[in-house]
Amino acid sequence: MSGTKRFGVSIDEELLKRFDKKIEDRSYDNRSEAIRDMIRDRLVEREWEEDDEVMGVVTLLYDHHRRNLSDKLTQRQHDFHDLIVTTTHLHVDEDNCLELIAVQGKGREVREVANELISTKGVVHGKLLATSTGAALS
Amino acid sequence: MSGTKRFGVSIDEELLKRFDKKIEDRSYDNRSEAIRDMIRDRLVEREWEEDDEVMGVVTLLYDHHRRNLSDKLTQRQHDFHDLIVTTTHLHVDEDNCLELIAVQGKGREVREVANELISTKGVVHGKLLATSTGAALS
Amino acid sequence: MSGTKRFGVSIDEELLKRFDKKIEDRSYDNRSEAIRDMIRDRLVEREWEEDDEVMGVVTLLYDHHRRNLSDKLTQRQHDFHDLIVTTTHLHVDEDNCLELIAVQGKGREVREVANELISTKGVVHGKLLATSTGAALS
Amino acid sequence: MSGTKRFGVSIDEELLKRFDKKIEDRSYDNRSEAIRDMIRDRLVEREWEEDDEVMGVVTLLYDHHRRNLSDKLTQRQHDFHDLIVTTTHLHVDEDNCLELIAVQGKGREVREVANELISTKGVVHGKLLATSTGAALS
Repeated sequence: MSGTKRFGVSIDEELLKRFDKKIEDRSYDNRSEAIRDMIRDRLVEREWEEDDEVMGVVTLLYDHHRRNLSDKLTQRQHDFHDLIVTTTHLHVDEDNCLELIAVQGKGREVREVANELISTKGVVHGKLLATSTGAALS
Repeated sequence: MSGTKRFGVSIDEELLKRFDKKIEDRSYDNRSEAIRDMIRDRLVEREWEEDDEVMGVVTLLYDHHRRNLSDKLTQRQHDFHDLIVTTTHLHVDEDNCLELIAVQGKGREVREVANELISTKGVVHGKLLATSTGAALS
Repeated sequence: MSGTKRFGVSIDEELLKRFDKKIEDRSYDNRSEAIRDMIRDRLVEREWEEDDEVMGVVTLLYDHHRRNLSDKLTQRQHDFHDLIVTTTHLHVDEDNCLELIAVQGKGREVREVANELISTKGVVHGKLLATSTGAALS
Repeated sequence: MSGTKRFGVSIDEELLKRFDKKIEDRSYDNRSEAIRDMIRDRLVEREWEEDDEVMGVVTLLYDHHRRNLSDKLTQRQHDFHDLIVTTTHLHVDEDNCLELIAVQGKGREVREVANELISTKGVVHGKLLATSTGAALS
């Protein structure tokens, strides 16, 4: 944990007014919080570009009636067990399941796991969300 | 469940070669699977644009030592309990937690929940992933 | 033209260090400039979401040997002449042309022009870049 | 120029219906055209990831009354004259100018030029659009 610093931002009056309106709409308590969020967002993008240790979430939407699909997805997840932290399974409706799979590793590895899982035949919609372990953000 | 149709795609030979190379890298079994994925991806974008019933995942990274933060996040999630399906909590390291929150509702509502949660003071990185209930994709 | 204001941002020391490294890599002169850029970027996103008067650039890559294509693109651009500000034509190589088309209008109209042009048969790659008239940014 | 091939796509009836509705909204003449567009879009993303020869468009919005700014932008563009293909200058209103700068080079170089130009003090909004020379798309 390091200390807190303060720096000044000079900004056009009109632009500041518009920014204030926007952060109010987005429920931020104050400008510092909104700006720290923008900064961290860019730093996370950078972690992924530079293949640092990152955290990702893969979502897989599929019909559980589809023969062998659950088994195949479980199998593929086991192949990457050292990268997969946890899996949450949701029963969206009678047919559809949504799995939320948290993956930790180098940016490139996490993308590879995501591609493998998303491309499994029968997955109706798959996505990768890029976030961080927080190591470079606190 | 509806039947399966087949249609032909005419495509330049060179372009097809490059597409085949790409789907091989992405681990797709065949072209149909890769193309269905691209199509569904566009349809999900559309569901969100048109404020249909959608499914989203909000990720919140934060330091659990931060006073009152867990309480506040739990409180805010309860305020939206009818939209939040489930929450998975991960202990990333000694300090950082990652929460994966599955949210279901109209596109606009899901965005609002996401904004409320992500803008909470102390959240180090927050993101919204847009996916689907599958109702319009099967 | 309005005056310049100044406000303070409190930020963790480590996070500030990383931000400074990033803005140095991106060639910014100072933090205020980088932060104003992030703010304006979000405001432009908002202009597009809210269907305000915006400015876009459509790029069209195509092979000029393709019969009737130039004519058709010119025709389609004339159909939207009140929205199209200017067109720049580039000869990329012996076969390929790149057109840069500046479009001004409501967000929805600009998207419509972009879709019409990009979907023209024979266009090899088409994209829409979202920018601003500057009216809400100065 | 290579020949045209044809391949079949098997797809769920409902999904096909929705796809047809979408391509109609987007003004495509037929499915093949829409699918080729999606494929090329992914291939262009790949060119940029792999640092191939690419084509980009940088937009710069700025107030021309701002002292020395035009000169500085011209100067910076000359520093990269071997990468910059052409520049189109638009007078958006009494104050604002929009420059459209076509840049050709390796993905990394084009990004660098874009960063340099966008980060110039006084630029109100700057963006980079990623497109292609077409070499890998025809």
